[in-house]
Amino acid sequence: MELKKKIITMARGAQEASRELALVPTELKNKTLVAMAKALAEKKDFILAQNKKDVILAQKKGFSGSLIDRLILNDKRIYEMSRSLMQVASLKDYVGETIRTWKRPNGLIISKVRVPIGVIAIIYEARPNVTSDCIGLCLKSSNSVILKGGSEALNSNIAIYKVLKDVAEKFKLPRNAINLIDTSDRKAVDILLGLNNYIDLVIPRGGESLIRSVAAKSKIPVVKHYKGICHTYVDKYADIDTALNVSFNAKVQRPAVCNAMETLLVHKDIAKKFLPEMAARFKAAGVELRGDDNTRRIVKGIKKAADKDWATEYLDLILSVRVVDSLDEAIDHINTFGSKHSDAIITENKKNASEFLKKVDSAAVFVNASTRFTDGYEFGLGAEIGISTEKLHARGPMALEELTTYKYTVFGDGQIRQ
Amino acid sequence: MELKKKIITMARGAQEASRELALVPTELKNKTLVAMAKALAEKKDFILAQNKKDVILAQKKGFSGSLIDRLILNDKRIYEMSRSLMQVASLKDYVGETIRTWKRPNGLIISKVRVPIGVIAIIYEARPNVTSDCIGLCLKSSNSVILKGGSEALNSNIAIYKVLKDVAEKFKLPRNAINLIDTSDRKAVDILLGLNNYIDLVIPRGGESLIRSVAAKSKIPVVKHYKGICHTYVDKYADIDTALNVSFNAKVQRPAVCNAMETLLVHKDIAKKFLPEMAARFKAAGVELRGDDNTRRIVKGIKKAADKDWATEYLDLILSVRVVDSLDEAIDHINTFGSKHSDAIITENKKNASEFLKKVDSAAVFVNASTRFTDGYEFGLGAEIGISTEKLHARGPMALEELTTYKYTVFGDGQIRQ
Repeated sequence: MELKKKIITMARGAQEASRELALVPTELKNKTLVAMAKALAEKKDFILAQNKKDVILAQKKGFSGSLIDRLILNDKRIYEMSRSLMQVASLKDYVGETIRTWKRPNGLIISKVRVPIGVIAIIYEARPNVTSDCIGLCLKSSNSVILKGGSEALNSNIAIYKVLKDVAEKFKLPRNAINLIDTSDRKAVDILLGLNNYIDLVIPRGGESLIRSVAAKSKIPVVKHYKGICHTYVDKYADIDTALNVSFNAKVQRPAVCNAMETLLVHKDIAKKFLPEMAARFKAAGVELRGDDNTRRIVKGIKKAADKDWATEYLDLILSVRVVDSLDEAIDHINTFGSKHSDAIITENKKNASEFLKKVDSAAVFVNASTRFTDGYEFGLGAEIGISTEKLHARGPMALEELTTYKYTVFGDGQIRQ
Repeated sequence: MELKKKIITMARGAQEASRELALVPTELKNKTLVAMAKALAEKKDFILAQNKKDVILAQKKGFSGSLIDRLILNDKRIYEMSRSLMQVASLKDYVGETIRTWKRPNGLIISKVRVPIGVIAIIYEARPNVTSDCIGLCLKSSNSVILKGGSEALNSNIAIYKVLKDVAEKFKLPRNAINLIDTSDRKAVDILLGLNNYIDLVIPRGGESLIRSVAAKSKIPVVKHYKGICHTYVDKYADIDTALNVSFNAKVQRPAVCNAMETLLVHKDIAKKFLPEMAARFKAAGVELRGDDNTRRIVKGIKKAADKDWATEYLDLILSVRVVDSLDEAIDHINTFGSKHSDAIITENKKNASEFLKKVDSAAVFVNASTRFTDGYEFGLGAEIGISTEKLHARGPMALEELTTYKYTVFGDGQIRQ
């Protein structure tokens, strides 16, 4: 009950603060962000010391190496957090922007104006940089933020939060605009997800199970992606070198991320020419291939792909490969097994490229480029608070523009409805 | 189990059809809409006969007069449905529109392109015109639609659906793009709301209890408004005539709709001058006033407003009235008790107007005009599928633009990520 009261008070305070924050001028927000970036560098030793506590505890508890890798901070990672805040300071402020203004025959002047969303809750796992990234993006877009990080990063998150919140207070930003739930009590998330009267949006960041659990419980709208099952389709009209380089990059450059390729589809007419060299390159890079029967006729000695392989996000050096009879079969495969994230076609044929772009129902669809480019920075959006495979509000990289909503303002001189 | 299978098959079919529908040219959609409009007129007798069955049944069951009023069709109402379809045919098609294109330093050409949302389910009550309005709007925006109307309108809805679906088939539109659940089994809605793999958006239209029940059960994103508690604030600097006319219109012109005024706020410095005449006008129109203590000192003989009055959507000739000390108090009142729908300030003071527009957190905020203008047609959006008091995706009247989402299309010539 105590915890519930505390979280409700926090959420209510965040809502009140969001209304003040909406009116803070861009210049003050940017100055604060620059000062926050500097504070992270200045308070580096404090943050690293707190992070060390988390790391030691995680090691004692026997957590996996990859979790500890995500958890650990060092000079370079703190520098990156600091640089991200500087970057956010330099980005366009969408708040207050007039999207469109028009006049009605009765004289009413209607404008569609961008405004902040309000209060955003971020639920995440072990990466402490999410704390500072989300504080920066929410501040720039004038949204109050409520952070709930993984308990294994609690000391690190509290440290970063304190450093940044101190700066915000020095610049007289609304006190309750930046919030962190500093408990490892798992009930906190359940309580938070019920507060749809105060919180406008929840963004879960982490593994599929975290996201599914948030989506199942939340009474608040959730923007999310469960996973990235991304495809590259090598069309009959592909340039072989492009196909080799782009497919290799999409799988191997960073296999553990959501925009890495998980399935390679190859048109039957090019399979014999393309697959042997591709397979050799993948083999050299330590990629395990799992193929359908047609692939295994061309590439000997690889495992057969089971049905569930087509729907699996490996996040590892594993790739399923299928030979398809036609462009339409490739598109059907992607729309059936994909996750509406990022998919690419390799082709020199404009008609096929255009058909693929139109028919593949994914957030980002590529022609002759690696799916790895689905990313706020790579798209030139400057930053991202997450990736969405939802159809509503935000699709693909969710950046500052998608952290706003709009309202209609209407000027009249006494108009009444007939 | 039979019902579940049937609804899943329907939803899956709708999803497949939505992919074809996304590619149908604007011209064919418009021709179909015009033919649909004509078909409604031609098949009027059939539709009226089916509607009569519903009306007789509703009368036998002793349903309220207002429900039967919403249910009943006549020549005029069918003509209006037909005219709406013609109107939708004449509106802009947003599908395929390029919102923005930019080139990255690495040569990638990125476009943000409007695409249909996919499959939209509409859950509504007794008004049969919703059937044809939603079929028209979804077709124009290339979304498949699944309709689930109230069981009291089942014969009418089936009749309208059949007439329009026949036209769609004549024009060879994808067979499963238009769907109606033709059962009064209440389980159908529960099944539908679980199909988040096939359905992208649910729009509930009807009373607050229907909408709350849909929102509580749905695994699919819901765009909705629960109610409209709309305010008019008469500022210290109001023009008295404007204040009288606009407030009167907002309350009286059509009290049973969501954008009608439910609470009148009056600045203390203008209350004595304004309230007596306003009260007299309301009295003459049969409006019951419920005031706070300050109001009751000026307007004698009216009921005291209870706490819950400020949060009540009367949908009737009842109005709560409060005298406030300042603009900020008015804004606080609205942000506390309002429903983020539509609120107005009456003032000749530009600074106060601007502050009100910025600080009131509602979908539509008016200066010197009636809240009754929050409406797709009145805003010049041509039509609306509903009104949203959500913050995400669609706010205020949800029209054809909001019935689309976007995807990123990216053209490269072999770019790989470093």
